[in-house]
Amino acid sequence: MVESRQKKKIDEKKPGIKDVAKVAGVSPTTVSRVLNNRGYISKETRQKVYQAMDKIGYYPNEIARALLNHRTYFIGVIAPSLISPFHGEIVQNIEAYLSKENYKMLLCNSDNKVEAEKEYIDMLRRNQVDGMIVGTHNNHSGLVEEYSKLSMPVVAIDRYLGDKIVTISCDNYQVGQLATRHLLERGCRNILCIRGDSKLKMPGNNRSQAYRDVMKEVGLPAMVLEVPFVKPLVEKQKLIYDMLNAHPEIDGVFAGDDSQAVIVLQIAREKGIAVPEKLKVIGVDGAKQTMFYVPELTTIKQPIEEISRLAVENLLDLIEGREGRSRLDLQVRLLKGKTT
Amino acid sequence: MVESRQKKKIDEKKPGIKDVAKVAGVSPTTVSRVLNNRGYISKETRQKVYQAMDKIGYYPNEIARALLNHRTYFIGVIAPSLISPFHGEIVQNIEAYLSKENYKMLLCNSDNKVEAEKEYIDMLRRNQVDGMIVGTHNNHSGLVEEYSKLSMPVVAIDRYLGDKIVTISCDNYQVGQLATRHLLERGCRNILCIRGDSKLKMPGNNRSQAYRDVMKEVGLPAMVLEVPFVKPLVEKQKLIYDMLNAHPEIDGVFAGDDSQAVIVLQIAREKGIAVPEKLKVIGVDGAKQTMFYVPELTTIKQPIEEISRLAVENLLDLIEGREGRSRLDLQVRLLKGKTT
Repeated sequence: MVESRQKKKIDEKKPGIKDVAKVAGVSPTTVSRVLNNRGYISKETRQKVYQAMDKIGYYPNEIARALLNHRTYFIGVIAPSLISPFHGEIVQNIEAYLSKENYKMLLCNSDNKVEAEKEYIDMLRRNQVDGMIVGTHNNHSGLVEEYSKLSMPVVAIDRYLGDKIVTISCDNYQVGQLATRHLLERGCRNILCIRGDSKLKMPGNNRSQAYRDVMKEVGLPAMVLEVPFVKPLVEKQKLIYDMLNAHPEIDGVFAGDDSQAVIVLQIAREKGIAVPEKLKVIGVDGAKQTMFYVPELTTIKQPIEEISRLAVENLLDLIEGREGRSRLDLQVRLLKGKTT
Repeated sequence: MVESRQKKKIDEKKPGIKDVAKVAGVSPTTVSRVLNNRGYISKETRQKVYQAMDKIGYYPNEIARALLNHRTYFIGVIAPSLISPFHGEIVQNIEAYLSKENYKMLLCNSDNKVEAEKEYIDMLRRNQVDGMIVGTHNNHSGLVEEYSKLSMPVVAIDRYLGDKIVTISCDNYQVGQLATRHLLERGCRNILCIRGDSKLKMPGNNRSQAYRDVMKEVGLPAMVLEVPFVKPLVEKQKLIYDMLNAHPEIDGVFAGDDSQAVIVLQIAREKGIAVPEKLKVIGVDGAKQTMFYVPELTTIKQPIEEISRLAVENLLDLIEGREGRSRLDLQVRLLKGKTT
């Protein structure tokens, strides 16, 4: 209690709207109108008010204004990881686009845990965010309903959260086609496709579907290994190691993402399998940090900036009462490196 | 205006404190006391109120409560990058610690631009954050004063923002000593030290000082190259390439961070210089993502989790009226890889 009283004292000493009005030579109502962008205000008056604010160091309380206007300009972003290069770059781009539009990002990392994601949804709701961008990989039972229950705009990246929720992702079928055809062209015949958890309903599932379709077209058998994104690194490594061990005939790997591709490269090095001579490897994502650290990797590059931009644009459209539109067709491209 | 009215209508339909009180069979004052943790409330009453909230889907408006209590539980975090593995991991850890303490992170990426950083400081102030954690690399004239002017708690990571501002960093002198001595032990005699911008006042400056001291001890000449963190990648590459070209006698490199170490490795590969036989390379940071992608790198590992934890702990101490304490002595350790 003592602390809160001290805080109030400090606040009382802070300049207020009345002080701004006095310095600017206008009425407090005019200052309030400038701050809230309401009614007609001449350019000169606006200028005078801004100069007065600057002069006396007045900072409008956006929280108070948010309550008044039922708009916080807060956007909740729930990511599955902040250290994966792909998700880190998505978050970095989203922050830049939001900030340009004067929105602020409340960033949450679900770490791919359902309980954490639920708590974050509640927290964001209690904090009256204007909308959410969700890029986590959990859509087990229950969570999708949590999102549908929300009375606020939500945009999903790379996952389905219900019929009414706008989803942004690249053309995942194209990813699978490009990768598989590239490996075939490079001479592979026994191609392993590594994919995420097939129980999750994600646009990314189209990748392995495209792989199966292309392999069928050319009359070659399909071989798919499931390596869930949520598994710890050592378990992923073991799954892939065991598969490569059990199938020495594998001469090409279409990895579900660049991290998995790097695991394959490391196992190949350990086992003395020459890449690309004996084994060709292609990943997916092409995040900047990955391409800096592993420039030799062949990958299918996702349009990370476009995904982020469209997620933000659609969310702001929804917030401002316009329509949002799902996009699952963003174009990808092959980045040919030295691993194929 | 129409939109805002519609919004109000929706809000009116939302359950309020009175509805919770009715369902719980208590007075609205009691509900308010439970929500604000004020006065004596029995366990059973508290339980009844929570159950009622759950039943009717009432979400307390934390923004309104924040205004009332002069505490938002928002923390502003200003990072210099979200895709650098070191900073990404710091942000991920800070978010986790804050979230555990029921604080929320407003994440800003200054991208190492002074103007952006200033705007973010203003924005965070207008949004009444309870405090800030700042890890950017800009402390050019003007910015340090901006932070000193703030009447709120601030904690800096890896930079000096003024005498009164708590700073958290590893023991940077130890970093320089460990790295230089390791290269000497591995037989290097012509060691290049790559460092950041020497005009910036940062704890990290002690690294090159330690390098100079150790080289002096053993009677060998020091060679220091400045590669500012803010430079674009291609420029960094060129600076390092030119230096290695001009000084073919260099047989060891103490790189300012792991990214610079990776640049050196890539140039060595390009020029056909055998690592570690002809050239030994050691970096600094040891972020998880880096060690996954470049496991062969020898590096001095920073205690990223401890740095993040202490930054959060000290900030919360300051917010709650306790004292904060700078720590510039966090212990690092050598991770011996194959590049030395």
